[in-house]
Amino acid sequence: MPRARGGTGWTYARAGVDRGATAIALRALLSAARPGAAPRYGRPVRLPGHYAGLVAVGRETLALTTDTVGTKVLLAEALGRWSEVGEDLVAINVNDLAAVGARPIGLVDCISCPSPDPSVFRQVGQGIRRGLTHAGCALLGGETAVVPAIVRGVDLGGTALGHFPPRRRPITGARIRVGDELLGLRSSGFHANGFTLIRRLLEEAGVDLRRPRPGQRTGVGRELLRPTRTYTEIIEGIADHPAVHGLAHISGGGVRNLLRLNGEVQFELDGWPEVGGLEAWLASLGDLPPRELYQTFNMGIGFVVVVDRGRVTDVLRRLRHAGAPDARRIGTVVRGTGVSLPGPDLQYDDYGGAR
Amino acid sequence: MPRARGGTGWTYARAGVDRGATAIALRALLSAARPGAAPRYGRPVRLPGHYAGLVAVGRETLALTTDTVGTKVLLAEALGRWSEVGEDLVAINVNDLAAVGARPIGLVDCISCPSPDPSVFRQVGQGIRRGLTHAGCALLGGETAVVPAIVRGVDLGGTALGHFPPRRRPITGARIRVGDELLGLRSSGFHANGFTLIRRLLEEAGVDLRRPRPGQRTGVGRELLRPTRTYTEIIEGIADHPAVHGLAHISGGGVRNLLRLNGEVQFELDGWPEVGGLEAWLASLGDLPPRELYQTFNMGIGFVVVVDRGRVTDVLRRLRHAGAPDARRIGTVVRGTGVSLPGPDLQYDDYGGAR
Repeated sequence: MPRARGGTGWTYARAGVDRGATAIALRALLSAARPGAAPRYGRPVRLPGHYAGLVAVGRETLALTTDTVGTKVLLAEALGRWSEVGEDLVAINVNDLAAVGARPIGLVDCISCPSPDPSVFRQVGQGIRRGLTHAGCALLGGETAVVPAIVRGVDLGGTALGHFPPRRRPITGARIRVGDELLGLRSSGFHANGFTLIRRLLEEAGVDLRRPRPGQRTGVGRELLRPTRTYTEIIEGIADHPAVHGLAHISGGGVRNLLRLNGEVQFELDGWPEVGGLEAWLASLGDLPPRELYQTFNMGIGFVVVVDRGRVTDVLRRLRHAGAPDARRIGTVVRGTGVSLPGPDLQYDDYGGAR
Repeated sequence: MPRARGGTGWTYARAGVDRGATAIALRALLSAARPGAAPRYGRPVRLPGHYAGLVAVGRETLALTTDTVGTKVLLAEALGRWSEVGEDLVAINVNDLAAVGARPIGLVDCISCPSPDPSVFRQVGQGIRRGLTHAGCALLGGETAVVPAIVRGVDLGGTALGHFPPRRRPITGARIRVGDELLGLRSSGFHANGFTLIRRLLEEAGVDLRRPRPGQRTGVGRELLRPTRTYTEIIEGIADHPAVHGLAHISGGGVRNLLRLNGEVQFELDGWPEVGGLEAWLASLGDLPPRELYQTFNMGIGFVVVVDRGRVTDVLRRLRHAGAPDARRIGTVVRGTGVSLPGPDLQYDDYGGAR
């Protein structure tokens, strides 16, 4: 198995993603965009740094999330397969809705491309349909911008709209307390995060995307392209349960996503499952330090549910019933702050993700 | 005044925007994305080709629109001024909500860029704030993707969420009938449409963006960059009036946007105001044929209100009161189909815009 040059290992920053600079620019935008007065229309619910923006109107509270597939599209382009990223487009957005307990009711896509290739668009559409079927909601519209002067590749973005059924309140993590248990739901691979780093690792190691890694039959490219698991139905199965105190979609930022839920406790991940073959193989390509791995990739767990410890058995049963037989205990909420992983001996104190 | 080479004149297609190819690709996507069954969550309201996607949930009907500023950002980049396009980002989306009579309650932005420049982000934020103030709603969240492998410029997109206040129904144009009058509201320049063509015209003619055109004091670049007028408050002033039968945001596609409202009547624009100096000057740069002008740019009218002819005086009074002293009669709904402009003797039979 090929190994990277040098001993210090690859990091996301070395791969060209400077999270600090992005955070600075974003703060400049958000601080300048802040209005002086309350809006005339709608009542926004302040939830800074969380997965979705909430706004109340009439008797409804609505949730809005927006996200792009990012550089995973470059893998789609290299393999000439686009339906997986189409499915990702839906999944990454509705999973962010699930992370506040919102039920998706519609999606719009936003595609910027250098030229309108009907075959690419058809495959993206097929993926979107699969994503919508998993999520249970409809495509309400979208935008297609053919702008070769702005984009060199296909930028696949979307926005999902969700609501809270009668008597369900947003699940923000504010009710998380010491003693709560953390349940993990398996990911379906790298989902749509960390691909700038993945691409650099593959390039440096000269990996042929069409060939399988040792012991596998599917090519590495196809393995990496696998669409994001949609957690909508699983979370719908427990979102009305009063013992569910917090929900985290493990997207960009890895385990640090837990910090978006509550800053006054520590999330101790003492039951993290053994890291799978694909992640381990990828890590070995570039001598990736464990710290980088857990703060960039989902490392096998794509969603975390924080539950009152007295009701863990009941919630696990419901999760299994709702489509997650893989649900298992992965940690505990303890006194302190941050996220800790006793296994690889890691501690994270800030989210680091842009938003 | 410089003139383009050749005698056939510039068109949007010659400038590199092939609307036909985009429409074909889009049809491939939409046809592939169509689900086989009704969604489990939310009740979508079918309104194909319209300005917003509608979905009903509980007692609310919600509207979602998504759009990008497009290649106007390249002008912002050339001038190093970004607040105008930040304001556009809000305006183009809430104007699309206004075109179905929906009231904006929140917005998310989605920015893809090659590098996170804090000064650019701050200015975009300032523009977003101004746009939100005009629109009366809040920024609920957003996404910032730093993806130099996908984009060479800043791609500025957004999604706006709207609702219908109690007793207001969506205004779709279905109630438009022969005899209705068309009222026009002035645009504030080219808004954020047609900039691929504008840029080509300026380049070919060797125009210095910092210098004013004849008879003006502001540089041409600043004139072209002027932010999109926000019609939210104006339309809020009449959206509950039963005589308002249709609303059209004159965005990409020019006057053909009227075709999105109703295909069973003809929109006869016999009172279109004299074309302003900026539009006439730009047209002269590239010998642009009138047909191309009216199907690409808003030509001075950014929004059209279709009104029962017996109530025109009342609606005009309300429009003036709501912030549009410029509102005026520009045409009539007659028997037939399509959009006709008796002045320049033009007839359009299809919308042509992608969506």
